[in-house]
Amino acid sequence: MQLFTKLSIDKMSKLFRLNLINSCTGFKSANLIATKSSDGISNVAIFSSVTHLGSNPPLLGFVLRPTTVSRNTYDNIKKNKFFTVNHINASQIEDAHHSSAKYAPEISEFDKTNLEEEYLEDFFAPFVKNSNIKLGCKYTNEYEIKENNTIFIVATIESVFVAENILQDDGWLNLEKAETVAINGLDAYAKTVIIDRFKYARPDQKIQSFLKDGS
Amino acid sequence: MQLFTKLSIDKMSKLFRLNLINSCTGFKSANLIATKSSDGISNVAIFSSVTHLGSNPPLLGFVLRPTTVSRNTYDNIKKNKFFTVNHINASQIEDAHHSSAKYAPEISEFDKTNLEEEYLEDFFAPFVKNSNIKLGCKYTNEYEIKENNTIFIVATIESVFVAENILQDDGWLNLEKAETVAINGLDAYAKTVIIDRFKYARPDQKIQSFLKDGS
Repeated sequence: MQLFTKLSIDKMSKLFRLNLINSCTGFKSANLIATKSSDGISNVAIFSSVTHLGSNPPLLGFVLRPTTVSRNTYDNIKKNKFFTVNHINASQIEDAHHSSAKYAPEISEFDKTNLEEEYLEDFFAPFVKNSNIKLGCKYTNEYEIKENNTIFIVATIESVFVAENILQDDGWLNLEKAETVAINGLDAYAKTVIIDRFKYARPDQKIQSFLKDGS
Repeated sequence: MQLFTKLSIDKMSKLFRLNLINSCTGFKSANLIATKSSDGISNVAIFSSVTHLGSNPPLLGFVLRPTTVSRNTYDNIKKNKFFTVNHINASQIEDAHHSSAKYAPEISEFDKTNLEEEYLEDFFAPFVKNSNIKLGCKYTNEYEIKENNTIFIVATIESVFVAENILQDDGWLNLEKAETVAINGLDAYAKTVIIDRFKYARPDQKIQSFLKDGS
C-alpha cells in the first residue's frame, strides 16, 4: 500500500491534496441545490456534502464554504429560508458540473446550462426538472465549523417528490432506478448498481438479504 | 411524481419514514470506523455519514447518535482521540452490515465477523484488513446538533493508505478500482462505475472530460 503521512499531506501541491483528500472519504451524494433571491433571480449549484441527519424530524445537513461560488446559495437561503435538493442523474452530469462555474450573482445558472427550473406546489424555491427525486427544504440552523471556517447547515425536509418506479412498499427509494449518480472526489461521476439489500442486523445471526431471502 | 408532504411524513409509520428519509438525500459513503478502548478492546462499526469537510487542513466529519450502537465508537474516540476510517468494498458488505448489530461493549465486532483488524505504523487504533483505502484520523472537535441531539464529529486526517492501482498522477483516487461501495438508504449497498471525470468548470465554456478530451 502507498502511505501518505501527515507530513507528506502538508507538503503536497495544492491540487494533488485537493484530489486526494476529496476522494479519500468515499463516495459523496450528488445534488443540485436550487434557491431564489428576493429579486426573483434563481440559482442552482452542485453540492456533494448533503448528508442524512435524522428521520424524525426529517433533517439533512450540508457544508458551505462561504467564500466560494456557493455564496449565492447561502445568501438566498439565509434570507428566504427555502431551498430545494435535487438528485443528479446520469443525463445531467455535464450541466450539474457546469453549475460550479463562477457566474455573477445576477446570472441564473438555469440560463447558462440545460438544467430547467420548475415550480411545484407553491414552493418558494425552484426545483430541477428531470431530477427523479427532489426535496423541498427549510433552513433550520447553522453551525460554524471553526476548524476551517465552513458552515454546516441543518434543514428540515418539508416535501419529497419521487418519480415513478423508484419507491418500494416499505418506503425505500431505489436510487439505481432513479439513476442517481455518486460523486468521486471533486469532479468524477459514477453510476451505481445495487448489489444487495440486507435486513436489520442482530447479534450472532446470519445477515439476510431482502432480495435473495424473500421478505 | 409521488408527493410526500410534511404532514404525510409526520403521519408515516416509523419504518416507512426511516427508509424514505434515509434514501432521499442520495448515495452515502460506506465506511467502517474502528477504535480501541483503553482496555485494549477493539471496536468496528459501519457509518454512512463520513463527509469531506476540507483539504487544508485535511478534515472530515461524521454524525453520531450517542444513544445507539455507535456509543462504543464515541466513548473510545473521546477517550483516546484516534480512530480509523476504512472504505467498505463489495466483498465486505455482509460483514460491514453485521457490525451494526448491538453487541455488548466488551465484545469486539472483529471477533463476530470476518473483518480482520491490523495495526499499521504504530497507529493506536486498528485498521480493517482488505479495505483498499484507509485513513488514520484524530478527533478534533464536536458540535452538538441540537435539532435532534446528534453529534457532528470533526477530525483531522493524519494518514492515508491506498492499495495499488487506485491513485492517479494528480492525487485523485479511482474509487471504482478500489471497489468502494456506496450506501442507498439504511441497508442497501451499490457498486459503482465511473461515467466521466470533468475538468474545472469555467463560465461560458463547454465542460471538458479528463477521460475523453485528454489531459
